[in-house]
Amino acid sequence: MKVLAISGSLREASINSALCRAAARLSPPGLHVKVLSGLGGLPLFNPDLEALPPSAVQAFRAAVSEASALLIASPEYAHGISGPMKNALDWLVSFEGTVGKPIALINASPRSRHAYEALREVLQTMSTSIVAEASPTIPLLGTCTTEEAMVSSPEVSSEIRAALQALAVHLTGQGASGPSFPLE
Amino acid sequence: MKVLAISGSLREASINSALCRAAARLSPPGLHVKVLSGLGGLPLFNPDLEALPPSAVQAFRAAVSEASALLIASPEYAHGISGPMKNALDWLVSFEGTVGKPIALINASPRSRHAYEALREVLQTMSTSIVAEASPTIPLLGTCTTEEAMVSSPEVSSEIRAALQALAVHLTGQGASGPSFPLE
Repeated sequence: MKVLAISGSLREASINSALCRAAARLSPPGLHVKVLSGLGGLPLFNPDLEALPPSAVQAFRAAVSEASALLIASPEYAHGISGPMKNALDWLVSFEGTVGKPIALINASPRSRHAYEALREVLQTMSTSIVAEASPTIPLLGTCTTEEAMVSSPEVSSEIRAALQALAVHLTGQGASGPSFPLE
Repeated sequence: MKVLAISGSLREASINSALCRAAARLSPPGLHVKVLSGLGGLPLFNPDLEALPPSAVQAFRAAVSEASALLIASPEYAHGISGPMKNALDWLVSFEGTVGKPIALINASPRSRHAYEALREVLQTMSTSIVAEASPTIPLLGTCTTEEAMVSSPEVSSEIRAALQALAVHLTGQGASGPSFPLE
């Protein structure tokens, strides 16, 4: 099962991007997490181009379509969703490949509630399916800001693993208490 | 007094863009409304580039800085601020020229409360000064969608004029009931 991890920040040292890369290293067997690299190459959303979208948008939509689920980790800018993240989502709003897509929505900062809540509202409006058990708040800001630190930290790596495990359970359609769950 | 009008949509037939152009034609004497044309040319926001921003960002910031106030009209996409609008605001968050800037925030659709409220939250967090009397909801969607229709409509043109007048009053620092208000 493929999971496409999307960071809403273009900053080189982004905590959210580091979280996505850490998730790729911590994914359980059977779950392949690929980190999206093209967010910064998307054009600004223009409804006039939806019928014949630019190639970068087509590639983005294809990656979303191929994934069984998305993992989204995005920063808060001025109490709002980051512009690049919202711009990427705008290109998916009328894309049928997004409907019903399971989402692990991870919040890397407990102090940032506005953007997280706004993302929830937007993703629900887009008819995606946010997987609650795979959508934790993991307090990383200021304490554990690099991929290496996240993978090395017993607490943080455990939280990331648990979220991915919950996503895997959701995708296989089995309850966590299932007796023969193959990913355990 | 210069007002920079910013539409959050890149759609050619955008109602919000038409509203900005109509405002430019309906502005009272003493108030010059200029419609921003470069929103679609801004790069996606990247904090790493803030120290030495791309030329399009520099031009945008200069236009904001030169304006006495901003008029913002932006659509709602999936219950959120449009990506291009939020992206533009992201470039202004740490720009000192935005602090205290008076804003006329016009909502062209009474049904779209999410994006409007999110814009209010973001703009307040950015320490701009939203001018309440200059920030009406004008029900345009489906009824009055072009610049010509807005200018020709007695009701709509009156509402736009009233918002601009309120902005002018705010900028001159005089109450609407002032006996010698020069823009009346």
